[in-house]
Amino acid sequence: MERKRSKASNIATILLLFLLSSSTEAGKRRIRLISQPCKSLSFYFHDIIYNGRNMANATSAIVGAPVWANRTILGGLMHFGDVVVFDDPITLDNNLHSEAVGRAQGLYLYDKKEIYTSWLGFSFVLNSTDYKGTINFIGADPLMEKTRDISVVGGTGDFFMSRGVATLTTDAFEGEVYFRLKVDIKLYECYS
Amino acid sequence: MERKRSKASNIATILLLFLLSSSTEAGKRRIRLISQPCKSLSFYFHDIIYNGRNMANATSAIVGAPVWANRTILGGLMHFGDVVVFDDPITLDNNLHSEAVGRAQGLYLYDKKEIYTSWLGFSFVLNSTDYKGTINFIGADPLMEKTRDISVVGGTGDFFMSRGVATLTTDAFEGEVYFRLKVDIKLYECYS
Amino acid sequence: MERKRSKASNIATILLLFLLSSSTEAGKRRIRLISQPCKSLSFYFHDIIYNGRNMANATSAIVGAPVWANRTILGGLMHFGDVVVFDDPITLDNNLHSEAVGRAQGLYLYDKKEIYTSWLGFSFVLNSTDYKGTINFIGADPLMEKTRDISVVGGTGDFFMSRGVATLTTDAFEGEVYFRLKVDIKLYECYS
Repeated sequence: MERKRSKASNIATILLLFLLSSSTEAGKRRIRLISQPCKSLSFYFHDIIYNGRNMANATSAIVGAPVWANRTILGGLMHFGDVVVFDDPITLDNNLHSEAVGRAQGLYLYDKKEIYTSWLGFSFVLNSTDYKGTINFIGADPLMEKTRDISVVGGTGDFFMSRGVATLTTDAFEGEVYFRLKVDIKLYECYS
Repeated sequence: MERKRSKASNIATILLLFLLSSSTEAGKRRIRLISQPCKSLSFYFHDIIYNGRNMANATSAIVGAPVWANRTILGGLMHFGDVVVFDDPITLDNNLHSEAVGRAQGLYLYDKKEIYTSWLGFSFVLNSTDYKGTINFIGADPLMEKTRDISVVGGTGDFFMSRGVATLTTDAFEGEVYFRLKVDIKLYECYS
Repeated sequence: MERKRSKASNIATILLLFLLSSSTEAGKRRIRLISQPCKSLSFYFHDIIYNGRNMANATSAIVGAPVWANRTILGGLMHFGDVVVFDDPITLDNNLHSEAVGRAQGLYLYDKKEIYTSWLGFSFVLNSTDYKGTINFIGADPLMEKTRDISVVGGTGDFFMSRGVATLTTDAFEGEVYFRLKVDIKLYECYS
């Protein structure tokens, strides 16, 4: 009987130690395994930069520029220093004229003299039958790379507290007025 | 005796399996239940835009604008493209003249031609007896909605590594010079 | 026998309750203990502001300013409202001429009339033998403090989904054209 009690106690002790160690690790553990996304979404957004002649269609405008440039057309030196504010329609396919499911709103800027690179801070404001809420992004966008990864740093509504990575691809462009970006969003932290 | 040992072993096995599965899920699980905030805070902040005549009182200034607008007064087309840098006092009540507990610092911009919408990137720099530290925010602010949710994407000091959602309400405004925002911050990830 | 079974059952029940409560807490728990960083990194970056005469060497340019200032030189009132876009080399030591391991890209702005304070939104784009990926930062930078903490809000590549705190120190400056910042990055959330 004594031995049996001790047996059960031993099992209990081992389990408790296991529990405690796992619980302590849960308190400290910050290194997580990269796993499958908890949500994956793909969208297109369409940017039409104001150029002095397209006010009706323009979805963005140059609002800052270095002293050597101007705000009517993207400047020299790879547009270095140009800052653009945008309100771009988001569509599910690559057609500018498809019904918008939301707007991409915020700013981007060109930040390098030698090659086209950009930096983005913006939000997806989604308002469709499928999704209502916002997704917030920041990150560097080295435009000459085929795909570029930026961070999803938060969200609200259907995207409450989301985090993840968004991969940008330049899907099309016409001159320096129309740009279409494909955005593949993979969320790795979701709440529900 | 053999049966009892096997009994205890079975319990141990079940518990271990439970533990291991829960531990494996802890490594992979990214979907968390929305729970109560770990911290809730409410503040007001007060924005007085420079308009050419109020330098002493101004807490913000227009620093970027599209080519058709200027930097002395918010422009047409719903202020589309205007960029404002601010250093606004934060108070605990809605009185501009109450003692400030910190400053709201960063930028906002107007980003739509057809309606007032804004985008924010800023920090709360708190320095009071109650709180010392910073809270960092980004998000879309569709001003015509009664309440708007943006993301708390990080923090330092008393708000080390915080994440959450902040709900903005326009508490008052006078013309296009004074704006008072109420901010209800709910943190869902806290460290201590 | 009955008593022993009940003994084992009791232990099992206690453990299960413990497990369930811990599991429930794992679902809800948002308060984590501050632990050691999962990754620590130190870098320097070097900012050379365009001043009308240094185009070849400049790594940044003033792109926005209040109506009373200009974009060739940082303005009065503690540079309040000046917005700078940058593409600064990142080095492992404090020598501007050391081989760059990446670029710091984004924007900073001065946001207070009475004292030098800044706000930053930028990315480290690292491309060295040691690190490939990006780290995204935002936060307030009260320049007169010896050290200032900003947030690491996300990352990609080797810094996939990272979060943490970066401590900035002004390591050197020459007039108002060259600034060197030391950045001590401590990541408290890592994925691998």
